[in-house]
Amino acid sequence: MTRLTRQDIYDTAKQLSNWGRWGDDDQIGTLNNVTPDDIVAAAGLIKKGKTFPLGLDLKQKIQSGLFGGRWNMIHQMLATGTDAVVGAQDGDGKAYLRYADDAINLPCQVGTQWDALCHIFLDDKMYNGYPATDVTVQGAARLGIEHVRGKMVGRGVLLDVARWKGVDSLDDGYPITNADLDGCAAAQGVAIAKGDFVILRTGHQERCLASGDWTGYAGGDAPGLSFETAHWIKAHDIAAICADTWGCEVRPNESDEANQPWHWVVIPAIGISMGEIFYVKELAEDCAEDGVYEFFFTAPPLHIPGAAGSPINPQAIK
Amino acid sequence: MTRLTRQDIYDTAKQLSNWGRWGDDDQIGTLNNVTPDDIVAAAGLIKKGKTFPLGLDLKQKIQSGLFGGRWNMIHQMLATGTDAVVGAQDGDGKAYLRYADDAINLPCQVGTQWDALCHIFLDDKMYNGYPATDVTVQGAARLGIEHVRGKMVGRGVLLDVARWKGVDSLDDGYPITNADLDGCAAAQGVAIAKGDFVILRTGHQERCLASGDWTGYAGGDAPGLSFETAHWIKAHDIAAICADTWGCEVRPNESDEANQPWHWVVIPAIGISMGEIFYVKELAEDCAEDGVYEFFFTAPPLHIPGAAGSPINPQAIK
Amino acid sequence: MTRLTRQDIYDTAKQLSNWGRWGDDDQIGTLNNVTPDDIVAAAGLIKKGKTFPLGLDLKQKIQSGLFGGRWNMIHQMLATGTDAVVGAQDGDGKAYLRYADDAINLPCQVGTQWDALCHIFLDDKMYNGYPATDVTVQGAARLGIEHVRGKMVGRGVLLDVARWKGVDSLDDGYPITNADLDGCAAAQGVAIAKGDFVILRTGHQERCLASGDWTGYAGGDAPGLSFETAHWIKAHDIAAICADTWGCEVRPNESDEANQPWHWVVIPAIGISMGEIFYVKELAEDCAEDGVYEFFFTAPPLHIPGAAGSPINPQAIK
Amino acid sequence: MTRLTRQDIYDTAKQLSNWGRWGDDDQIGTLNNVTPDDIVAAAGLIKKGKTFPLGLDLKQKIQSGLFGGRWNMIHQMLATGTDAVVGAQDGDGKAYLRYADDAINLPCQVGTQWDALCHIFLDDKMYNGYPATDVTVQGAARLGIEHVRGKMVGRGVLLDVARWKGVDSLDDGYPITNADLDGCAAAQGVAIAKGDFVILRTGHQERCLASGDWTGYAGGDAPGLSFETAHWIKAHDIAAICADTWGCEVRPNESDEANQPWHWVVIPAIGISMGEIFYVKELAEDCAEDGVYEFFFTAPPLHIPGAAGSPINPQAIK
Repeated sequence: MTRLTRQDIYDTAKQLSNWGRWGDDDQIGTLNNVTPDDIVAAAGLIKKGKTFPLGLDLKQKIQSGLFGGRWNMIHQMLATGTDAVVGAQDGDGKAYLRYADDAINLPCQVGTQWDALCHIFLDDKMYNGYPATDVTVQGAARLGIEHVRGKMVGRGVLLDVARWKGVDSLDDGYPITNADLDGCAAAQGVAIAKGDFVILRTGHQERCLASGDWTGYAGGDAPGLSFETAHWIKAHDIAAICADTWGCEVRPNESDEANQPWHWVVIPAIGISMGEIFYVKELAEDCAEDGVYEFFFTAPPLHIPGAAGSPINPQAIK
Repeated sequence: MTRLTRQDIYDTAKQLSNWGRWGDDDQIGTLNNVTPDDIVAAAGLIKKGKTFPLGLDLKQKIQSGLFGGRWNMIHQMLATGTDAVVGAQDGDGKAYLRYADDAINLPCQVGTQWDALCHIFLDDKMYNGYPATDVTVQGAARLGIEHVRGKMVGRGVLLDVARWKGVDSLDDGYPITNADLDGCAAAQGVAIAKGDFVILRTGHQERCLASGDWTGYAGGDAPGLSFETAHWIKAHDIAAICADTWGCEVRPNESDEANQPWHWVVIPAIGISMGEIFYVKELAEDCAEDGVYEFFFTAPPLHIPGAAGSPINPQAIK
Repeated sequence: MTRLTRQDIYDTAKQLSNWGRWGDDDQIGTLNNVTPDDIVAAAGLIKKGKTFPLGLDLKQKIQSGLFGGRWNMIHQMLATGTDAVVGAQDGDGKAYLRYADDAINLPCQVGTQWDALCHIFLDDKMYNGYPATDVTVQGAARLGIEHVRGKMVGRGVLLDVARWKGVDSLDDGYPITNADLDGCAAAQGVAIAKGDFVILRTGHQERCLASGDWTGYAGGDAPGLSFETAHWIKAHDIAAICADTWGCEVRPNESDEANQPWHWVVIPAIGISMGEIFYVKELAEDCAEDGVYEFFFTAPPLHIPGAAGSPINPQAIK
Repeated sequence: MTRLTRQDIYDTAKQLSNWGRWGDDDQIGTLNNVTPDDIVAAAGLIKKGKTFPLGLDLKQKIQSGLFGGRWNMIHQMLATGTDAVVGAQDGDGKAYLRYADDAINLPCQVGTQWDALCHIFLDDKMYNGYPATDVTVQGAARLGIEHVRGKMVGRGVLLDVARWKGVDSLDDGYPITNADLDGCAAAQGVAIAKGDFVILRTGHQERCLASGDWTGYAGGDAPGLSFETAHWIKAHDIAAICADTWGCEVRPNESDEANQPWHWVVIPAIGISMGEIFYVKELAEDCAEDGVYEFFFTAPPLHIPGAAGSPINPQAIK
């Protein structure tokens, strides 16, 4: 396959750009594609009253040092039952409270997560043309995750590419093409519509869970979306793109001149919200069983002003 | 008012106990009250396609040192745009990625949050009779927040007690009674049903937001539920009780022999999930405007095995 | 008093600059002033075998939100005795270890600390002319604290200005002048020499410790060195300047055109290591008692490559 | 070799116990062995004015998940030069400060460190008979590191066992015997005295530094002190025992009935301060060159009340 040049990336970004489409001060990108009617219609997909939580266990040690100095979540107790039972919380014995309390320390993108629109730059720019320098150690003055805190609601669609291909997991390096996306959707009997939250299943995460080996999952080779799917995303005007992998995009990448070339286009140029490390095992099994691959979807990020991402526990409700 | 004795608390806990009601190995308490049909019915409440995110801005400095050594969230950047534009992320200039990344460090209950059922002990016991010693520095072996990660879905009901009382905010120390709850519901034209997620508005949080002064909000005096409402909660078999205050319960407390006496009963004995520090301003305004105080509600906790709570951004969808 | 203009600051910086003095690749500034002979001579000051640890208790809540988003140290346990005694550390009971373990999370400059030479910029430059952009979220590529990890050894001299002035504490806003420094040294019978680690006592910290009120200590008004002392520092070629205050420099500052104008000169231009928040109570009392204000001094920073500072527990040994 | 039974450990602990030796309220154990005269005498060892910092680079990724949930230090910037140069720190442009600032998050024993006397329990007891339950999530009420904050000063002696044995590094599992200690000291021409800070070089750490592979260093197999050296330690009444390894003690351990059996004795029974992960390369080379294995030693822990350990950067000064 021909390798993408830097110029290819710039050209595609320019071609697919949504800058200005929703106003010069837009902060939410393709989430503008979701209308109130879409949400009402999505509610109609709740028919069994069955909820699938899509957040991966945050104590899985999925980071192995390949990217950005991220660490696995640290969970620490501020108050324990063992302290309580020896009376250490009772003070003078008059009016105490015996309780457990705790704290967490985690990179916003350590596990199941949304990328904020400020997460990826195209050279010196962010989505909608905002300068990358809007992101300082104080956080993102623009395009932080707070802008979408009430926007992650709508119709979800699972594209179970692995199952459609008849494998437990796609191979690392397998590039999911536009034809794959269309073929899988057709086989599943679901049509991708404007405003959809599209969730891909490659089987990569379940492979790691089954083996207990996460080496390379976060930042190494992986199956994932090929560069051409940027066109598919723009053409379908979906709301968000999500996957069970670390980064949605195929790795090794299709370019020698950019790390994550597809990211360079879909976040800063198209302005799409990206969900990663989704745990979809039970959801996928249920969809395979009842043949229904659409559902009500909501994945509220935490309200962290200026954040470049947020840990989430998305809910697919059928 | 007569002050509650320790024995009063024990007696009420015994009277209202749900221990064993849903099996000796139950981990979710009153969330058992929500049926699949309840969820389907709740979906029918989505009529306008309007979403209200109920997570308070995590950068509000609401902790002032009154309780448990909790600190305000620390948000730190792992990658910035200012670094990007000077080329600090470009390595050898071949295949780089320019991006923003960040991390958060926060007590699980620093802002809008769920208490896990392991959060409060009744002497040496947790809900369902589990020993408090199940909670060590490794986290909670039982009753951690992970058990409810797909259970926070159903019908939400706002009881806007402050508005019903005609005030911007109830006074600190005001004890919300069973009569208040019933009166408010009746005035709003909504009947509390089994499996409901009940959310109270006292106005306390909005008072702090308006003044910019959070002194005492977290752990000081506050309006809130009186001890007798434990009976109301059990009688209505609701799923969860939530409020815009730090701790739902009225402070100063109604007992000299326990800190948070109502907590001693409702979490360990009744097994109710408690939501705190909910931001309900726009939701309450909308309810007042359209007269509809019920909605689809979902508030997924993060998937943190063994956690005594979780930060959340609840979604009320009408 | 005439207020300092920005130009005054630039002019003084230029006049006192040590850029290039110790080579174009120098990383330690005025610590070059300490010779091996100075260290041997300083050892001769150890006559009583008495050690004064100068690190302030890190659990004092000295940060009150005035500067830079710093938080008070968070100390958390990873293993406790209460867990141990209930057997929670014993595994299968064969070959266990019962132990305590813990972790700390702190700004490098939250308490008693060294400023690294990269801590303060003069516009776009650091000491020795290095570009400020050498400091990214990855840390400082130049002038990090690691360069001085074996350099904080020599003769220490306490200038107990407060005691010399006959007060428990100098007033906030009191500017210590060159005449004060000389007068105090003379009264104490000690001559400041090249390579000395000079430690000032203003009494500010002891005032806070006595009252239990740290409001304003970190970043508010304080007694401290006046701008003119930059000349004194350069003239004496001392190794380091330290104080019992948050920032050594008098506050309110002597300029409307710079925050911490003295800092603009002494760190980036002179290249001096600065020690702050030193706890000197017992040391000062001992010096007053025996009349000896010089001692062996060592204050090793932690070996943190790229750090802009380090928590320390300096030792004055007489 | 006969494997140690639990009873062997208890018997040795009882035989070597220092409980009560320095009073029922003693908090510093064998550091009582250091007298003011010892400190004065040690000062006389400073003859060259040469300082060796013994703190290992805290950015070495030495933790590989084998023990206690410890993580490698996280170093994060609160203020950067890249932010400064784009003007992000300048506010309204009047009186700003351009600066770098940072924070660290680390287990107290992640790198070069002191164990506090509360670090290891003998069943339910700590040194001097204090109950292990004194250590809660609030920290250690007794035997915390703060008690020794001015006590880590005296004569240091390096026992370069690896060099004496003629190897770059002792093999993992090699048990250093009493005969080794005595033989090495004799060959080096140094006599171990009461109150000494004894530092062992096994070469283990340098082996990891050279290879860049830290797998197993922290918590895996290692050369180290055999169980019998507990007798040697008691007999010599040294102040502290330190090494270039993770845990001083040989691993695999000499018992199937205890993890770290030697620790069970030397910390809780003898009450010795233990220093670990010391970086001794240049010190050892210098000692080999000049034949002088004694020096002035100081290794002040941070002033963290209730801590079970402290990161340090020890200084050996010759």
